[in-house]
Amino acid sequence: MSKISEKFKQSIASIPTIKRLPSYLNLVKRVDEDGKTIISATTIAKELDLEPIQVRKDLAVTGITGKPRIGYQVTELIKSIESFLNWDTAHKTVIVGAGNLGSALMNYRELRNHGLCIAAIVDANPSKIGTEKKGHIIQDVQNIPQIVKDTGASMAIVTVPPEQAQVVTDLLNQTDIRSIWNFTNVKLKVMDHILVLDEDLSSGFAVLSMHMPFYRESIK
Amino acid sequence: MSKISEKFKQSIASIPTIKRLPSYLNLVKRVDEDGKTIISATTIAKELDLEPIQVRKDLAVTGITGKPRIGYQVTELIKSIESFLNWDTAHKTVIVGAGNLGSALMNYRELRNHGLCIAAIVDANPSKIGTEKKGHIIQDVQNIPQIVKDTGASMAIVTVPPEQAQVVTDLLNQTDIRSIWNFTNVKLKVMDHILVLDEDLSSGFAVLSMHMPFYRESIK
Repeated sequence: MSKISEKFKQSIASIPTIKRLPSYLNLVKRVDEDGKTIISATTIAKELDLEPIQVRKDLAVTGITGKPRIGYQVTELIKSIESFLNWDTAHKTVIVGAGNLGSALMNYRELRNHGLCIAAIVDANPSKIGTEKKGHIIQDVQNIPQIVKDTGASMAIVTVPPEQAQVVTDLLNQTDIRSIWNFTNVKLKVMDHILVLDEDLSSGFAVLSMHMPFYRESIK
Repeated sequence: MSKISEKFKQSIASIPTIKRLPSYLNLVKRVDEDGKTIISATTIAKELDLEPIQVRKDLAVTGITGKPRIGYQVTELIKSIESFLNWDTAHKTVIVGAGNLGSALMNYRELRNHGLCIAAIVDANPSKIGTEKKGHIIQDVQNIPQIVKDTGASMAIVTVPPEQAQVVTDLLNQTDIRSIWNFTNVKLKVMDHILVLDEDLSSGFAVLSMHMPFYRESIK
């Protein structure tokens, strides 16, 4: 898995494990809303179609251990996952690219609920620079180094056209930014201290596209 | 996992399994580009931080079986996953909501590569209706039933504001649409023949937010 997971192997949890944690959290929150106080690894495994051993391993990274034959305390499990993901603190973020996707992500409620906090919005288009969006004046992409310094932002979301992706990354490389959420399909070259996560919406599309013929057949 | 996976349990693969398949595909394509012709379940498991038994189970749904002590043929595995996900055919899709997110998804190259094909774009905003976007005239959301009939679209992507989500779903409920990709945070009420997939970008955000303090500590 290239550079990303190599970095992460030094850490306590792998990227695939971390990526699974939100689905555990969603499930456990639903169980909590239903008024249940205990959930077993077996139940979680069944709901998410994983092996129970996988569930126990994944959840163990958050520091929680279930009680044998009983399971996990629901409220404790929620707190444990949220705390592990740092979803209980604010993450100052620079949105790089004030186009459709950048604008959409600013409005994405789930991300705001998990701590995404817009520190600045930048763009390369002179007709956009100086205009307002979501209470922020769009700033010149060239000012990224100063903006990151001034705001103390730790995260950047890159939603620029492919040909600009490495250009803005070179600017981010000059900063103390810790991670880049990359929505372009370009493999970004970053300094060693920066983690890049390449977003891919293909997982969701897979469910829908796979689903087609099955339903066609079952209905007709 | 509510209605969605209940429906799917009648099928041959669960939603979580299907969602994992694109990451297998990405990995195997990378291995293919590196010139390797064989990959073992153990190697895949290691790269994706899964248990080998999970990998074998997941890949088995596509109809492929690895050879004991050897593994999977790389080209055969790619073909098997792509064919299972129907990523080798076109999926006519109605984009419901011509706002930022809808526009961003139309441009998303990965989805186009996997067969996403825009059949129509609809919106409720009178100032948008009749204007052009990506070679399509934006149509009135009220015309959804006729549009789906005329185009034979099988998929809808819903990117409207929360308060409009169920309104447009009620229109989609009158059609033969097979699945809805829901980018709103509203639980949509659909007819039994429609599958809803709720998209959630929180998985990616989890990796970034979790990553913060680890790096902070390791750098300073």
